[in-house]
Amino acid sequence: MSTPMNKRPIGVFDSGLGGLTVLKALMARLPHEDTIYFGDSGRAPYGSKSADTVTKFSLQNARFLLEQQVKMIIIACNTASSRAYDAVSAMAGLPVIEVIGPGARTAALVTRNRRIGVIGTRGTVESQVYPAAIRRCLEGPAEIYQQACPLFVSLAEEGWWDLPVTSDIARIYLEPLLARGIDTLVLGCTHYPLLSNVITATAGPDVRLVNAGGPIASIVAQTLEQMGLKNDSHLPGQHVYYTSDSVEQFTLLGSAFLDEPVEQACRIDIERY
Amino acid sequence: MSTPMNKRPIGVFDSGLGGLTVLKALMARLPHEDTIYFGDSGRAPYGSKSADTVTKFSLQNARFLLEQQVKMIIIACNTASSRAYDAVSAMAGLPVIEVIGPGARTAALVTRNRRIGVIGTRGTVESQVYPAAIRRCLEGPAEIYQQACPLFVSLAEEGWWDLPVTSDIARIYLEPLLARGIDTLVLGCTHYPLLSNVITATAGPDVRLVNAGGPIASIVAQTLEQMGLKNDSHLPGQHVYYTSDSVEQFTLLGSAFLDEPVEQACRIDIERY
Repeated sequence: MSTPMNKRPIGVFDSGLGGLTVLKALMARLPHEDTIYFGDSGRAPYGSKSADTVTKFSLQNARFLLEQQVKMIIIACNTASSRAYDAVSAMAGLPVIEVIGPGARTAALVTRNRRIGVIGTRGTVESQVYPAAIRRCLEGPAEIYQQACPLFVSLAEEGWWDLPVTSDIARIYLEPLLARGIDTLVLGCTHYPLLSNVITATAGPDVRLVNAGGPIASIVAQTLEQMGLKNDSHLPGQHVYYTSDSVEQFTLLGSAFLDEPVEQACRIDIERY
Repeated sequence: MSTPMNKRPIGVFDSGLGGLTVLKALMARLPHEDTIYFGDSGRAPYGSKSADTVTKFSLQNARFLLEQQVKMIIIACNTASSRAYDAVSAMAGLPVIEVIGPGARTAALVTRNRRIGVIGTRGTVESQVYPAAIRRCLEGPAEIYQQACPLFVSLAEEGWWDLPVTSDIARIYLEPLLARGIDTLVLGCTHYPLLSNVITATAGPDVRLVNAGGPIASIVAQTLEQMGLKNDSHLPGQHVYYTSDSVEQFTLLGSAFLDEPVEQACRIDIERY
């Protein structure tokens, strides 16, 4: 007998480790849900790669999760959400949640002066999905300024979260946005929450940072509820992890991103999917 | 009738763009040789990935080049050379040249005080191939100090070759080596020659930088000569390029690495190999 739909795990994928910041918000909001996380560390990062490479990788990742009998797929990567949401959604046949919409909606809610900055990878910025999504949520005129910050992912993964040089790089990337008088800044990459101290300090007290982790978890909770897919268990959820590269590296760095130990990680050959 | 062995192209592969600095040296030294370059930009970088992922990717890259009927394979990537040389060599059935040996031999030749620094990716440093190769070339005691510089690849690809922040990062990475009194510094990653101005300025006038491009080209010339594989044409060599990601991106950034226009680039699906 197959597992009832609501008891199945939620599938989450990302190019590597960044999506663990989304998983963390999800575990806090939905403590009884089981999850399966796949981090494509063997082919990371996605941010500098072309739309069709990212789409191909995302479809493989989603096929792997479907094989694991998930009830929902969360694309916990802004680049993959911006490039491959339609393709994954068309293929999956079950709810697919992306990470752009929740951040865009939050930015539209919190801005006072309608000047919004968006930082992300080159792929996310080029795709223009954030400006389009924010404009859909904000009636009337709005100014949206984007900046690609390719070095932020390396800084996050190097663990240089609080070095002076990280502040210098943040200043180089953020100054053009700050000069426009933004009052809201969307962290449009799931790696960036790790640098939020430096980004907050650089942006100053008048700029509100939008980390979409919480809003994404709310959308997931709402979707599960509406579709009758919520797990009614009272036990703590089980969390398993898969990676396309070394389990040791994933476990070590992943625990820093998740802020708790990553256990039960396995390696898979994603190119088979 | 198949092409005579000596008229066939030389195959070169790298994780992405860095190997173009080796190709550049090769084109200068052997202007009549045809070349086929494959840059695995779709799965780059290799430096932070595990030994078996890098080996798997390298074997796929080599299989692609073999299918193109090359007469020799150059692994123009330090990480792939350090992790996968034996596997590629055992599989290829033709001469395979790696990039560690030439740099190590040059370092052993130029050092006066026998204190040598090596910078590279995390993968290259962990593999310990440089210390082993340098010790094989240097009789008697020697002190070899290594430092992984993960951000250098991002800085090179971001085009931040001369920014103050690049100097600051270079200082963070190089100071522990300079404190040891090294007189020789091996650029153990084919991306690093793009940062050589900053690295030279940071290391100061008493430290000799070793860029293995020239020595690698000499080894290739010598191997071709010895094996009767040298192309006796008097025409300029033809150069074709393949990438596993967007041709536009490869062409644009590649021209900066090669210091001349990249033409005739094609995209391939490397996961088929």
